[in-house]
Amino acid sequence: MSRTYLAVLGVGGVGKAFLSQLSLLPDHLRPALIFLSRSSENIVSKDYEPIQILQYQSSLASSSSPVLKLPEVAQFLSNAPGRSIVVDNTSSQDVAEAYPSFLSKGISVVTPNKKAFSSSYSLWEDIFSAASSTNAMVYHESSVGAGLPVISTLKDLVATGDRVTRIQGVFSGTMSYLFNTFSPADNEPSGSWSEIVAKAKEAGFTEPDPRDDLNGMDVARKLTILARIAGLKVEGPTSFPVQSLIPKELESASSAEEFMSKLPDHDKDMERYKQEAKSANKVVRYVGSIDVASGAVKVGLQMVELGTPMASLRGSDNLICFYTQRYGTNPLVIQGAGAGAEVTAMGVTADLLKVVERLR
Amino acid sequence: MSRTYLAVLGVGGVGKAFLSQLSLLPDHLRPALIFLSRSSENIVSKDYEPIQILQYQSSLASSSSPVLKLPEVAQFLSNAPGRSIVVDNTSSQDVAEAYPSFLSKGISVVTPNKKAFSSSYSLWEDIFSAASSTNAMVYHESSVGAGLPVISTLKDLVATGDRVTRIQGVFSGTMSYLFNTFSPADNEPSGSWSEIVAKAKEAGFTEPDPRDDLNGMDVARKLTILARIAGLKVEGPTSFPVQSLIPKELESASSAEEFMSKLPDHDKDMERYKQEAKSANKVVRYVGSIDVASGAVKVGLQMVELGTPMASLRGSDNLICFYTQRYGTNPLVIQGAGAGAEVTAMGVTADLLKVVERLR
Repeated sequence: MSRTYLAVLGVGGVGKAFLSQLSLLPDHLRPALIFLSRSSENIVSKDYEPIQILQYQSSLASSSSPVLKLPEVAQFLSNAPGRSIVVDNTSSQDVAEAYPSFLSKGISVVTPNKKAFSSSYSLWEDIFSAASSTNAMVYHESSVGAGLPVISTLKDLVATGDRVTRIQGVFSGTMSYLFNTFSPADNEPSGSWSEIVAKAKEAGFTEPDPRDDLNGMDVARKLTILARIAGLKVEGPTSFPVQSLIPKELESASSAEEFMSKLPDHDKDMERYKQEAKSANKVVRYVGSIDVASGAVKVGLQMVELGTPMASLRGSDNLICFYTQRYGTNPLVIQGAGAGAEVTAMGVTADLLKVVERLR
Repeated sequence: MSRTYLAVLGVGGVGKAFLSQLSLLPDHLRPALIFLSRSSENIVSKDYEPIQILQYQSSLASSSSPVLKLPEVAQFLSNAPGRSIVVDNTSSQDVAEAYPSFLSKGISVVTPNKKAFSSSYSLWEDIFSAASSTNAMVYHESSVGAGLPVISTLKDLVATGDRVTRIQGVFSGTMSYLFNTFSPADNEPSGSWSEIVAKAKEAGFTEPDPRDDLNGMDVARKLTILARIAGLKVEGPTSFPVQSLIPKELESASSAEEFMSKLPDHDKDMERYKQEAKSANKVVRYVGSIDVASGAVKVGLQMVELGTPMASLRGSDNLICFYTQRYGTNPLVIQGAGAGAEVTAMGVTADLLKVVERLR
C-alpha cells in the first residue's frame, strides 16, 4: 500500500469545506497534502512532507513560496514519490484546460468544476483520452447535483449496458427555489416573480448577479455533462435550445441593480404563464431534459402536472429522473440539495476516497 | 494490469440476468469466468481457462465435474494465477456464512444476497474483519433496493463524515405495490385488502407464499443492513419491532392456500386503519425507519401525509430518504424499482466493475 499525494487548488466555500472533511479522514485513507493554492498564494511542501491541513489559512497567508504556474504544479506532482491526485475546487476555465496535461502525467483529477466537462467537446475528448493513456482517473460527481449520486449512477447504468432513454429534472437549486416559491404545488398565494427573485437574491440563494442564474447556462452546462456521459456528442452548452429568463429588453442592462429595478415591468409575462399552467392543473418548473434516442437536449420553462415528483419539489432541491430500458415506466429518481459548500465538498471527498482506494 | 478471475454461484433470475450483462462487458473489464454453479451442478474451468459465458446452460447440463463444496471452491479460486472474485447470486445462508473464508483467502465478494449482512452481528464482523485483513473487497449494493444507489450513497455519507440522523422509506417492492394500490394518494376506490393481495400473488408480484412478504422480514433484513452501515450494532432482523401483516389467527395456517382463503375474514381491520388515515388526509404505507441517535429501528404500518414522496409512490417503487446533518431539513431521496432480475443484476454488475477497477 503505497502513499498517495495530493494537491488542492482553491480554498473558497467548497475548498474550505473539503479541507475540513479531508482533515477528518482516517490516516490510512488520507493522501499527503503537498500543495495548496488560492489565486495569489500557494504552499509547496518541502521534500514532499505533508502540509498541516488545519493550519492552512495562516500558512497560506505567511507563505513566501513563489506562485507556481499550472505546468509547474503538474511537474511537482509527477515527481512525487508515489501516485498523485489534484483536487480542483476552483471554477476556473484555465485550470480545467490543464486537466489533460495533469492526466497525461498520470495525475488523477477530482473536481466539482463543471467547466472541463461542459466546454468544447474536444476538451472532453482530450481529458478522457489522456486519462486512459496513463490509467489516471477523473472523478467529478459534484459537477452535477453537488453530492447527490447523479454522475456515478448514470455511469453505472451505462457501464452495465442499460439503455438510458431520457434524463429529465430540475438541475439548479436556485431555479428550484424560485419556482417552488412562485408556483407552489399547494397553490398558496405567492409574491410576484420579481419580488421572489429579489428576496432570493437578498437571502443569498442566487448568484450576486441573478442574471448568472436566470440565463440558464448553469443548467445547460450540467445537461451537457449528462448528455455526453449518456453517449451524445454535444458540442457545448450553447449548442442546444436554452430558454433564458432574462427578458430581451433587459439583456443590455448595465448592472445587476439596473436589471433588478426593471424586472417588475416583466412580471405580467411570468404571471400569465403561471395562470395558464394553473388552469390546466399544473405548476411551472425550470426543466432540463435529454432525449437520448433523438439527441434532443433542451432547457426551459415547462408546465408540470400536479402530483408528479417535479411538481412536489420543496426548497431548493434538485431532482433528477433517469428513464431507462431496465427501469421501465417509472424512472430512477434522485432528489435532494444540489448546492451548498458542505454537500458539494462531500461529493469531492467521496470521489477522492474512490481514487485513493483504486491507487492502493 | 493483471487478469482477474471470477466464480459465479447461482443461475436463477438474477444470476441469468447477471451472466447476460457480464457477457456484454468490454473484454478489458471482464474477469475470466472460471467457475459456475447451480444447486446440483457446476462447471470448473480447466487450467483457469475462461468458461464461455453464452454456452453456460448447455455446459452446466452436460457437465460431469464433481460438485465442489464451498471450501473447495475457495481453494480453487485462491490458486488462480491472479486475484479472484466470487459473485454470489444465491439467497443461501450457507454461502453467506462462507464469505469470511473466501475473504480471508483474498477473494473479493460481490452479492445481492441479504443473508450475510442481516444475520448475526458476529457474521457481519467476521466478514469485514476478514476483508480488511487481506484487502479483499465486499460489495453488496443490490442487497437493499436492488440496483438503486442506496448502499453506496450511505457509505459515502458516512465515509466523508456526514452525520446520518434518520433513514426512512418504503423498502419492499411488494409492500409498495400492495399499499399504493390499497391506499392510493388520489383516493380512487380500490379493492379490499385480501383481493389486492390475491391479485398481486397471481401477477407474480409477491413471493409464491405471500406470507414471506407479509411477515415483514425482508424489510427487517434491509433495515438491519442500513442500520449497521450507519454505525448501529443491530443484532439482527428480529431484534427490533417488526409489524407482521399476517393476522395472529392465521399464523398457524398450514399452507399458502389456507392463508389466502382465510385472509378476507380480516379485511375489516385493514379497512378500518385505511379509513382512519383517510379522515386525517393521509394514506397507509409499510414503512421502515432508523433513528440513528436513539438507535431505534422499526418496521410497520404508518399513516403518511398526502403530498409527501412516500404518499406519492407509484407501482412497486422503493423510496429511501436519508436525513443527515449536511442535507438539513430536506432528505437525500432515492426512488425507483427496488426489485426485478435486471435491475438487481445491474447492481451486481456495477459492483463487480468497481472491484475489477480496484484490482487492476
